[in-house]
Amino acid sequence: MNNFSFGNPTRILFGEGQIKAISEEIPADARVMLVYGGGSIKQNGVYDQIIDALGDRIISEFAGVEANPEFTTLCKAAKQAQDDNITYLLAAGGGSVIDGVKFIAAAACFEGDPWQILLKWGKNIQHALPFGSILTLPATGSEMNSGSVVNRSEMKAKLPFGSPLCYPKFSVLDPTTTYTLPVRQLTNGIVDPFTHVMEQYLTYPVGADLQDRLAEAILQSLIETGPKALADPDNYDLRANLMWCATMALNGLIGCGVPQDWSTHMIGHELTALYGLDHAQTLAVVLPANLRIRKADKREKLLQYAERVWHINEGSDDERIEAAIARTEAFFQQVGAPTRLTDYQLGDDAIGAVLSQLKQHQMVKLGERQDVTLEVSAKILEAAR
Amino acid sequence: MNNFSFGNPTRILFGEGQIKAISEEIPADARVMLVYGGGSIKQNGVYDQIIDALGDRIISEFAGVEANPEFTTLCKAAKQAQDDNITYLLAAGGGSVIDGVKFIAAAACFEGDPWQILLKWGKNIQHALPFGSILTLPATGSEMNSGSVVNRSEMKAKLPFGSPLCYPKFSVLDPTTTYTLPVRQLTNGIVDPFTHVMEQYLTYPVGADLQDRLAEAILQSLIETGPKALADPDNYDLRANLMWCATMALNGLIGCGVPQDWSTHMIGHELTALYGLDHAQTLAVVLPANLRIRKADKREKLLQYAERVWHINEGSDDERIEAAIARTEAFFQQVGAPTRLTDYQLGDDAIGAVLSQLKQHQMVKLGERQDVTLEVSAKILEAAR
Repeated sequence: MNNFSFGNPTRILFGEGQIKAISEEIPADARVMLVYGGGSIKQNGVYDQIIDALGDRIISEFAGVEANPEFTTLCKAAKQAQDDNITYLLAAGGGSVIDGVKFIAAAACFEGDPWQILLKWGKNIQHALPFGSILTLPATGSEMNSGSVVNRSEMKAKLPFGSPLCYPKFSVLDPTTTYTLPVRQLTNGIVDPFTHVMEQYLTYPVGADLQDRLAEAILQSLIETGPKALADPDNYDLRANLMWCATMALNGLIGCGVPQDWSTHMIGHELTALYGLDHAQTLAVVLPANLRIRKADKREKLLQYAERVWHINEGSDDERIEAAIARTEAFFQQVGAPTRLTDYQLGDDAIGAVLSQLKQHQMVKLGERQDVTLEVSAKILEAAR
Repeated sequence: MNNFSFGNPTRILFGEGQIKAISEEIPADARVMLVYGGGSIKQNGVYDQIIDALGDRIISEFAGVEANPEFTTLCKAAKQAQDDNITYLLAAGGGSVIDGVKFIAAAACFEGDPWQILLKWGKNIQHALPFGSILTLPATGSEMNSGSVVNRSEMKAKLPFGSPLCYPKFSVLDPTTTYTLPVRQLTNGIVDPFTHVMEQYLTYPVGADLQDRLAEAILQSLIETGPKALADPDNYDLRANLMWCATMALNGLIGCGVPQDWSTHMIGHELTALYGLDHAQTLAVVLPANLRIRKADKREKLLQYAERVWHINEGSDDERIEAAIARTEAFFQQVGAPTRLTDYQLGDDAIGAVLSQLKQHQMVKLGERQDVTLEVSAKILEAAR
């Protein structure tokens, strides 16, 4: 097991009716900026619950944060926070809104061009506004971590950053707020956490038995409850379980003391930046191909994954590995995420374009051994055709 | 799934050589009181590493915290902390020392008789000194939670308390500090976490699939690595895994949103208070008997436990349940913890004495349904003969 330092200060308020509890988490004298996306929170009652819970606090609103939040939009929001002397940010939405609020929190306190935050991966963040979140679209895990991804369309760039100052103070997870989600978003909420776990689990063994088993627990729970939740969309416990899986998949815990990959994400980000695919759709395309191309390096963990997660015990090593990857692919398809570039009308020119972007963003040594060069990424994309 | 609020502010510094990192966690101008037990930290090098890491800080020492820390000892330590104007406490040892430091932290800031802290379960704690811990005996999980148990021998009392102010700021988990532990302590470090998980897992289903699977992950990891660690005492990864299992078993995570039992602990505490059994020894005695007596109420979870943890798939429901309990008992015996009162030279008079203590401490409605009355406790103790 590798050495690690782990701490996560975010408080989770989980369950039906928990939005009202934010009144005890946000200082009574806070000047709050409520940040949200396209306005679905006004249709599903979440907006009213928030306004009610905030009571007499001064509230500024910023609506219109996009899926894959845009740098220019977030800079406008940061300006508004400065102009309105905001002391506390409140995100209401999914990973894009929460990621956006992390950037707003840092940018509102940043001296100089906020683009520098992304160029330096957030290491230059020295102050950030405190913020909380009301999660309505579980998938990315942003509600309980300090990472974020920001888009800059005119540069075809989608860049990650993080900072210890960018943990939410609290996040509300009320499963009933997800009842109105479109099926596609529910699909994303299964594929995205599944891949987050795989990025931290499917590398090479370091004797971290507990971390492996915790990761397998999340994978098994997603496999067990994902399809059921799609078939039974009003089932509270199934929604609740998917929501908690998504948070646990990326709050730092299962990544403690183990190598991590993340090449699927880095390749996937370029597909979103170039062609607008949902983040989870890109993962469904890249992950199975990535596992196939790098199966020699990931051999021991792939065999463990086959046995413990998919209960595949028959056949040669190679057959069990291929069966496990095929089951992964079939699972993504079963929950509504096609797994081939061609399923999204993308051909060979897309492969070249993604590779060009990876090169431009210096994503040329990816993976747990930094050996996913552009050549390897090319093979992965070709295997995903 | 039940509603829950979860947050855990303790930072974990895990791995060989991490003691030196405390210099970055404790304020440079802190006046530190180092609290430890019988002095084993002076033999195994931990003491020297701590003193080295504390550098120029003013240090006061308090040695002699007992296994099952004594109220009167801890009150002396609190007095010393006040007299020396201590601003930061540092525990070095196992659960008893860390539990003790939690009480010292609260008592040093408490107005009035500190016994009131225990009588009110800690709800009357309004201030506490900040503290960190260096864990050298993994078992109780105290290094990453806010609970504590204090002994008062002259009253034959062993009483729990807790407070949000009693989380360690940090805990160092260096597996190499456990190499010198006696076998009996390693046994305790397997049985205690195992039972902690069972208290939170083995109740009745509430649709919390992920929590169940996370609990099962810890149980499986203890079953897998516990006996191996006993057979191969210098294996770093096995020690590391047991250490992390013990922390994860009782840091609040797997108890989120599920009913909890804890009757085994409450009955066990009385056995320690009366007869001085190790805490884990009492759990090894009480848990199997508890599961047998209450198997009708715990039926669904016992069947799940049999299938998922012990892979028992044959026989009638009753046979599978009995087989799972028998495997639990055999596991405790295998790792060195006898499971019968008579194994500890305790007879029927001990049963009467424990029941009398439970009554005196108002432990008359225990368990996840508050239906473990004195009559049920009597049956459990009789089944443990």
